[in-house]
Amino acid sequence: MTFLQTFTEVHIPKIDQQLTKQIQSINAPDILKEAMNYSLAAGGKRVRPLFLLAVLDFFKVQHSEATTVGAAIEMIHTYSLIHDDLPSMDNDDFRRGKLTNHKVYGDAMAILAGDGLLTYSFGVLSRLKSVSPDNKLELIQLMSEAAGAEGMVGGQVLDIESERKTISVEELETIHINKTGALLTFSIVAGAILASADAHAKKALKDFGFHIGLAFQIQDDILDIEGTTESLGKTAGKDVASEKNTYPALLTLDGAKMKRDWHYNQAIESLRLISSEPGLLDELAAFIVNRNK
Amino acid sequence: MTFLQTFTEVHIPKIDQQLTKQIQSINAPDILKEAMNYSLAAGGKRVRPLFLLAVLDFFKVQHSEATTVGAAIEMIHTYSLIHDDLPSMDNDDFRRGKLTNHKVYGDAMAILAGDGLLTYSFGVLSRLKSVSPDNKLELIQLMSEAAGAEGMVGGQVLDIESERKTISVEELETIHINKTGALLTFSIVAGAILASADAHAKKALKDFGFHIGLAFQIQDDILDIEGTTESLGKTAGKDVASEKNTYPALLTLDGAKMKRDWHYNQAIESLRLISSEPGLLDELAAFIVNRNK
Repeated sequence: MTFLQTFTEVHIPKIDQQLTKQIQSINAPDILKEAMNYSLAAGGKRVRPLFLLAVLDFFKVQHSEATTVGAAIEMIHTYSLIHDDLPSMDNDDFRRGKLTNHKVYGDAMAILAGDGLLTYSFGVLSRLKSVSPDNKLELIQLMSEAAGAEGMVGGQVLDIESERKTISVEELETIHINKTGALLTFSIVAGAILASADAHAKKALKDFGFHIGLAFQIQDDILDIEGTTESLGKTAGKDVASEKNTYPALLTLDGAKMKRDWHYNQAIESLRLISSEPGLLDELAAFIVNRNK
Repeated sequence: MTFLQTFTEVHIPKIDQQLTKQIQSINAPDILKEAMNYSLAAGGKRVRPLFLLAVLDFFKVQHSEATTVGAAIEMIHTYSLIHDDLPSMDNDDFRRGKLTNHKVYGDAMAILAGDGLLTYSFGVLSRLKSVSPDNKLELIQLMSEAAGAEGMVGGQVLDIESERKTISVEELETIHINKTGALLTFSIVAGAILASADAHAKKALKDFGFHIGLAFQIQDDILDIEGTTESLGKTAGKDVASEKNTYPALLTLDGAKMKRDWHYNQAIESLRLISSEPGLLDELAAFIVNRNK
C-alpha cells in the first residue's frame, strides 16, 4: 500500500464524519438537512480536503481543525455540483453513481440545498476555534473569491456561454482555471494558511494548485472518452454527444494527454522549489493524473 | 417632509451607488455582472440597509462602512428573490415592476447570478477596513445563520413544504420568522454591532427586529389582497389564487391587521426600553406597517 493509500484511508472517513457532524448540528427543517446530506454523503474523491490535509502533512503541521476547513470546502464543491446538475444547467440524472439531488428532492429543494451548503460553509469558517481572527478572515475572503463570480461561478458562466460555439484552447483554459481550478487552488492555499507557511512556499503551492487543477480537468475530459459509465458513476461520452468544448475535442486525445502531462510536470516543478524530495503531494498529483474515475 | 423621508432620500442613492460600485469592481464575465446588477438595480425599498443605517443613527454613530455592510445584506436579499422567482420555486414573471431575472437572462444565469451575489456578500464583509476582525467575524457568522438553512433558506423550505396543506398560525409564523425575519433582524443587529452597542441594547433591538419583521410580512400578505398589481410591481392576488398560506387566509383580513398591529406595538415597546423618545426607527417601523407597496 502506498503512503497515499494509507493517508486517504485514514483521512477520508474523518472528512466524511466531519461533514455528517456539521450537517447534523444544523437547526433546520429535516428535509433540507436530508437533501444537503444526500449529496455530501454521495462520496466522491474528497480531492480538495485531501489536498488541504496533504499540504499540512508537507509542512509536518498537525492542525485540529484542518478537517473542518476541508469539510467547508467540500460543502462548496458539493453545492456547485448540485446546481450544475439542475435541468436548466447540465441536466444530469446521475452523479457518483447515484441519482442527482434534484432527481430525488425536486428542483426547488436542490436549489435550496445548494444555497444552504454554500451559506453554511462561510459560517463554518467564521466559527473556527483554533485559527486566528486574521487567518479566518483570509480564508473567508479567499474562499469567497475562489467560489464566486471571480472564480467558480464565473467559470460556470463562461462554460455555459461557450456552448455550441467553437472556442480556443486559451478560452477553454480560462473556463477551467475558474470553474474547477480556483477552488482546488484555494484548498491548497488554505492548507498553507493553516500551516503558517511563508510567502515563498505559498506562491509555490499556489502555482502547484494552478497546474494540478488544469491537469485534473484535462483528465476529466479524457475520462469522458476513455472511461465507462460504470467506472465514472456518471454518463460517459456525454461531452462528445453534446459537442462540448473539451481538451480532446480541441487538441485530439493525444494532444490533451500531452497538455495534461505538461501541467502535471509544471506542478511537480513548483513543488521541487520548496522540497527536494517527492512526498505525499507528489503522490496525490500523480493520482489526479492517473485516476480512472 | 418627515425625518424618515429626508433620511431615505439621502441614503437610498448611497446604497444604490455602493451596490453599483461593488458589482463594477468584480472581475467576472460581463453577462454575469449584468445579471447580478439587473436585480440589484431593480430598486426595491432597501428596507434592510435602511434599518442598519437607522440603528447607527439611533446611537448617533457615524460609520464609514455602514453602507457597505448594508449593500452586502441587500445582495443576500436580492439573491433570495432571484432564486425564489425561478420557475421551480414561485415561478414569478415580474418583480418590482420589471421582468424577473430568469425571464431576462434564463434560468441557468439567474441561478448563477444568485450564487454569485450570495458568495460575494461574504467577501464584502471579510474585506471591511474599519471594522475589527472580531466584529467582522461576528457579522459573517450571524449573516451565515440568518441567510442559511437555519434562517432564510430554511424558511423557504418550510414555505414550500406547507404548500397545498393547511397549517396553523404558529407554523406560518415559524416560516416567516425564518424566511424574512432572520435577515431583517440581522440587518438591525449588524447596525448594533457597528455601533458597538451593549448587550442590553442589542437584545432590545433584536426583539424590535423580530416583531417588525413579522409585521412586515403580515403587511405583505395584506397588500396581496388590498394592493394592485400596478402599485406592487408584482402580481396582486396571487396568494389567494394559489391558495397560499397567509395571515389573512388563516385569520381573516381583520385578524391579520390586528396581528400586524400587535407585532408593531411589541416592536415599539422594545424600542422604548432603550430610548424614551420616538425617533427614526419608530418612523421606519410605522412606514413598514403603513406602506402600500
